[in-house]
Amino acid sequence: MNEVIYETVVSTVDAAGVPHIAPMGVRYEGEGQAGHVILMPFKPSTTHDNIVASGHAVLNIVTDTRVFAGCVTGRRDWPLRPAVAVPGMHLQAALSHVELVLVASNGDPQRPRLRMARVREVQHAPFVGLNRAQAAVLEGAVLVSRLHMLAPAKVAAEMAYLQIAIDKTAAAAEHEAWGWLREAIAGHPAHRTAPST
Amino acid sequence: MNEVIYETVVSTVDAAGVPHIAPMGVRYEGEGQAGHVILMPFKPSTTHDNIVASGHAVLNIVTDTRVFAGCVTGRRDWPLRPAVAVPGMHLQAALSHVELVLVASNGDPQRPRLRMARVREVQHAPFVGLNRAQAAVLEGAVLVSRLHMLAPAKVAAEMAYLQIAIDKTAAAAEHEAWGWLREAIAGHPAHRTAPST
Repeated sequence: MNEVIYETVVSTVDAAGVPHIAPMGVRYEGEGQAGHVILMPFKPSTTHDNIVASGHAVLNIVTDTRVFAGCVTGRRDWPLRPAVAVPGMHLQAALSHVELVLVASNGDPQRPRLRMARVREVQHAPFVGLNRAQAAVLEGAVLVSRLHMLAPAKVAAEMAYLQIAIDKTAAAAEHEAWGWLREAIAGHPAHRTAPST
Repeated sequence: MNEVIYETVVSTVDAAGVPHIAPMGVRYEGEGQAGHVILMPFKPSTTHDNIVASGHAVLNIVTDTRVFAGCVTGRRDWPLRPAVAVPGMHLQAALSHVELVLVASNGDPQRPRLRMARVREVQHAPFVGLNRAQAAVLEGAVLVSRLHMLAPAKVAAEMAYLQIAIDKTAAAAEHEAWGWLREAIAGHPAHRTAPST
């Protein structure tokens, strides 16, 4: 059985307090407040280095998919607010956030499994239901993050399929996010549509 | 611009108190407690008839996608609990539910737009993040609900694509839901895999 992965955004700060955000698939172990969040950042990465150096991070539960699409298209400057129980930051757009402290690492040289304890959780806005366009943007963001290793025909076919949910169910945020993803594909050397001659 | 649609489950009761649940894409108008939920059930349907006769319904915000996959594969018997502000029922599996009363209908003969006011909202469990496998099950459930009008090759190709997220990110609930969907496709006269000869 695979591990269950939830798509979130992790925010960290470096020693000087400079914040960094990164979309991250996370695992949960255990139940409720006593449960742990497992983060598996690649090495080297700013997220990994910040967590190991500072001993803390913030997990942001986000449904505004502009943050996911933005991070893979060079738009990382999302409004942040100070956390309280750790000296970090959370995303203003988060539906909820969890302030985390590092309790253990398995020391894997490429992708350590960082076990984080929950020290504070805050809900900012209600979750109002699954939305097919949000899911389509998330899938599109995964594609865009892998453009360097995917065949253009595969990317084009999957984007065309995902477009259906955008057209049927998207909010303004997802239309904007989708535009960024399409632009990134159109501007990529290997995926750019050949000019008609 | 399309309308923004959230995938939920609506529970209703008939005059004798017999409950009925149905997956439904809903729209929200206005903000917060004063905002309305727009339900557009087809006529004829049990959901439509129950709401018009009783004047109320319950909106269930659900991420356990077994409910969506179950309803399109003949599994509608999900545990229910009594609502409080209306004499209806909510899904036990709901992350949250909203008790609704009917305030207006536009009277459309095929698919009336029912405007519902929120009279009580209860959160039962936190939303812990988007999950690609949940989205895949939702898309698979949409496919299964349309098997009678889709080409077998299209269904097979889309299920193969969606399978990737199931394999990578699914919880036990989504594996179970996915199995029901695959079984429904395999058992459908137009989509059944031809026996090898």
